[in-house]
Amino acid sequence: MAEKKRVLLIGSGGIGTITALNLELSGECAVTAVLRSNYNAVKENGFQIDAADYGKFKSWRPSQVLNRDGEKKEKEEYDYVICTTKNTPDVPPPTLPLVDLIRPAVTPGHSVIVLIQNGINIEKPVVAAFPRNVVLSGISCMGANELRPGVILQNEPDLLGIAPEFVRLYNAAGKAKCSYDPDLQHERWRKLLYNCVWNPIAALTNCDTGRLRLVGLSEGYADVDPVVSLVRPAMKEVIAVAASVGVTLDPGLIEGVVEADELEVFCVPSMLQDARKGRPMEVETILGEVTRTADRNGVPVPVIKVLYVLLKAKQWWNFEANGLIDLQASVEKRKRKLEEGK
Amino acid sequence: MAEKKRVLLIGSGGIGTITALNLELSGECAVTAVLRSNYNAVKENGFQIDAADYGKFKSWRPSQVLNRDGEKKEKEEYDYVICTTKNTPDVPPPTLPLVDLIRPAVTPGHSVIVLIQNGINIEKPVVAAFPRNVVLSGISCMGANELRPGVILQNEPDLLGIAPEFVRLYNAAGKAKCSYDPDLQHERWRKLLYNCVWNPIAALTNCDTGRLRLVGLSEGYADVDPVVSLVRPAMKEVIAVAASVGVTLDPGLIEGVVEADELEVFCVPSMLQDARKGRPMEVETILGEVTRTADRNGVPVPVIKVLYVLLKAKQWWNFEANGLIDLQASVEKRKRKLEEGK
Repeated sequence: MAEKKRVLLIGSGGIGTITALNLELSGECAVTAVLRSNYNAVKENGFQIDAADYGKFKSWRPSQVLNRDGEKKEKEEYDYVICTTKNTPDVPPPTLPLVDLIRPAVTPGHSVIVLIQNGINIEKPVVAAFPRNVVLSGISCMGANELRPGVILQNEPDLLGIAPEFVRLYNAAGKAKCSYDPDLQHERWRKLLYNCVWNPIAALTNCDTGRLRLVGLSEGYADVDPVVSLVRPAMKEVIAVAASVGVTLDPGLIEGVVEADELEVFCVPSMLQDARKGRPMEVETILGEVTRTADRNGVPVPVIKVLYVLLKAKQWWNFEANGLIDLQASVEKRKRKLEEGK
Repeated sequence: MAEKKRVLLIGSGGIGTITALNLELSGECAVTAVLRSNYNAVKENGFQIDAADYGKFKSWRPSQVLNRDGEKKEKEEYDYVICTTKNTPDVPPPTLPLVDLIRPAVTPGHSVIVLIQNGINIEKPVVAAFPRNVVLSGISCMGANELRPGVILQNEPDLLGIAPEFVRLYNAAGKAKCSYDPDLQHERWRKLLYNCVWNPIAALTNCDTGRLRLVGLSEGYADVDPVVSLVRPAMKEVIAVAASVGVTLDPGLIEGVVEADELEVFCVPSMLQDARKGRPMEVETILGEVTRTADRNGVPVPVIKVLYVLLKAKQWWNFEANGLIDLQASVEKRKRKLEEGK
């Protein structure tokens, strides 16, 4: 029997853990999962998993778990390095940019780097940092959440679109649907219709996607229905930006994305989940890249731009509250600037 | 000696209590203050006041205090009914609209109604409800806060602009500066430059006005400086809307309003104070009226409109969280609408 593929998984939350489970079940992969907030819980009890595609597990463990905080250096040679972390390049140190996070684990010229993350242009810094490695860009439509440390619920099918080499491995366990998606950029942009619109509006208003669709029905709210005034206009902006980079999204998609989540699920998009927990939100790979692409190509994105700047300020507040920004230094800097301006 | 003027004060927070103090000190007014959240504290210990213009008081009391929750009906005939409450017409019952709140206290054809509140068009419903009464519209530039129930700090001078009849009374104590402002609408709009811009941006981002001016100085934030992308553009929109109703605001005012609060005071605008406390924000008299006026007069207000709808959704969330909106009824309503639409 051939040696198992050595897989390093960085980011073992909802999506990551189901990915690890799937690859281990194939019998062809030995997954090393890098944990952080859930390390102690998993080390002690394993993962408790309730997965629509894979079944229930009381105490499941990948081949190996590492503690990111305790064991900084991976010495093994990995065939695959899979990133399922959030992608927040704007978060200041000590949070590492993605390329620095994976660097110790990447064997130049050997490891295949697989990014299963939201956003656009996320491959660019990785390709630049590891020019001799294959970088695969994947986009997951799976619904999976870590309810509390080590407790994973997968409630939407494991559908993964990805570039070729990885496809066979991901399908080997026979449960997931991993397809070679020759048009991954189209998929990325289609997913942005949701992430670039529902996510920030939810994070700024504290309303989930169910409630945001109900607001306009309350007395006195007809003129300020967020779906009419913000959601649809912002989705139209995303479609226009996509068109400017040669990706054609059918405007008919909009209503499907407006109603993507069942009303009564009161789905809490990831940015609102993060906002409520006081964690960094994925602002840059989603709204930042869309806004910059729009500016470069002369596409007006008035709604998205306002959402972007508001979110950045909200993110900044969170950074400062967590001691990641030196307030006094900023005050001094501004005073100097005002002085110079005089 | 002439009988004292009987004054009913509704809303004895920061601004209201200093107003009452000033009128009592004149020796010409007997003020009845209607209290709510601070009734017990004041009934027991009086107000503790530290006022820049009036001095310090350990246990000050107006002529009379009433408990809004306990004593619904005022039977006295009041010469003046002064409203210094927040003005939130969109808050659902049991909160009463302003006109219903003051109705028991207004003697038709006699009581002079004085509104010392933010926003525009706030007089209209009051004039409509009390056609036989004089309605005065005042705008205060005083800085005063209720730090905790019954404890009042006045830290900015008591400057009040108002229409004629009330001016002499307000100045009688010799401490405040109340002037007859023949151009009150201009003042209202000038104040809106601040309230319609700093307030919502702060409430949505959780950043005070000091921090909002620092965000753009942090590394990676140059392109998303809220002052450049939101504050100045929104203030220009306010100026354009003002122009459409014949009020000319000098664009040169903008920088003054941008820097209105000292950076290091980290001033928390009232909407952010309310948002942090989970209280209703003054959305309608400020952003709602400006947006509607803009729509009526064909003035584009893209930034303010996005801020307005986001704030309304945030306000809705707060209402629902406080049991003021029936979620299940909304869900049913939406389902019926979708069915009908098919």
